[in-house]
Amino acid sequence: MVGNSLGTKLVEGGHSVFLGSRSAASEAGQAWLRSVEGRGQIGTFAEAAAFGEVVTDATNGANTLTALRLAGAENLRGKILIQAANPLDVSKGFPPTMTVCDTDSLAEQTQREFPEARVVKALNTINCAVMVNPGLLAEDHDLIICGNEAAAKAEVTKWLGEWFGWKAERVIDLGDIAQARGTEMYLALWTRLWGALGTPHFNLRIVRAA
Amino acid sequence: MVGNSLGTKLVEGGHSVFLGSRSAASEAGQAWLRSVEGRGQIGTFAEAAAFGEVVTDATNGANTLTALRLAGAENLRGKILIQAANPLDVSKGFPPTMTVCDTDSLAEQTQREFPEARVVKALNTINCAVMVNPGLLAEDHDLIICGNEAAAKAEVTKWLGEWFGWKAERVIDLGDIAQARGTEMYLALWTRLWGALGTPHFNLRIVRAA
Repeated sequence: MVGNSLGTKLVEGGHSVFLGSRSAASEAGQAWLRSVEGRGQIGTFAEAAAFGEVVTDATNGANTLTALRLAGAENLRGKILIQAANPLDVSKGFPPTMTVCDTDSLAEQTQREFPEARVVKALNTINCAVMVNPGLLAEDHDLIICGNEAAAKAEVTKWLGEWFGWKAERVIDLGDIAQARGTEMYLALWTRLWGALGTPHFNLRIVRAA
Repeated sequence: MVGNSLGTKLVEGGHSVFLGSRSAASEAGQAWLRSVEGRGQIGTFAEAAAFGEVVTDATNGANTLTALRLAGAENLRGKILIQAANPLDVSKGFPPTMTVCDTDSLAEQTQREFPEARVVKALNTINCAVMVNPGLLAEDHDLIICGNEAAAKAEVTKWLGEWFGWKAERVIDLGDIAQARGTEMYLALWTRLWGALGTPHFNLRIVRAA
């Protein structure tokens, strides 16, 4: 769902989009391709990663590392990898628990296993409809990112502005990739706010002292 | 620090406040008592819990259960226990890790061990200066609470309005006490936002769809 949303919005913006999955022409992939009237490509994780100038990880967090292994370290080398995935274990019901947290994170696992990928954790704190359309919400709100490389975070901030309309001044950089423990663990609150508010269409606006 | 802030604000509001600690007349307690010009009482956890119509848990989360055992189940019976404590392990540096998370929470441990206390998790998502003065921040912002008993949550919402100025319409009730996993795990983000923003004086304003 996240990959489809991101892909559709990027296609609409005139970008060349290649959606990867386990199988080259999955049913979900074909449905997406029809929905964008053929203005995109679908294939394996490895084909998608090889194609991309930038790679976005919108996988199910419990299977992210498996998917990235299928994508292949050689296809991720030197590329910015925007990780929107969260390590949620949805197998035991809602709200989900986490497959990793507190002393490690999916983002750190990813950066460790793919040291030549330039991992930027971003977009994982919001629903996909808000990701691609921050103006959906009634007021400006904040995107919290992190990653080891300042240049990669600056690029991602610029892209998220160009692609989706995120304002650079509303991007909060927490620091290195280990800070993803914070944004991933926030999902434990995010899923419950979704339940309490009755909608996933919300986000945080950090209010500071007057 | 949290207990002192809450105690001082309540004393200033004309309430009778009894601060408990391990020792009956701790140095910190005596310093607080001087700071409020004797308009309060200090003593043991048990004395404080016995005194209170309502009990606020502002302990160091790693030692909360120990402190509550010293307070005594008989002194908590039937009383609303506002738990501002968080299960943070600060022994290994900053940002802290958690002593419990994901599949359990300090609030649930507390409610399980003290089934006759009416535990309401509240105020744990903000710095103590913001707890007692929500107007410190530039815009309205949200207080996220939970607990098993609707009547107790309604009382706490009313009190937080009367005591500190929290607006009832900005209180978000996540549901039963297990939802405290969400507000406690948010501390992993809160501590990092503190680092990134350079101040603990901030809070979340949840922005919804237009």
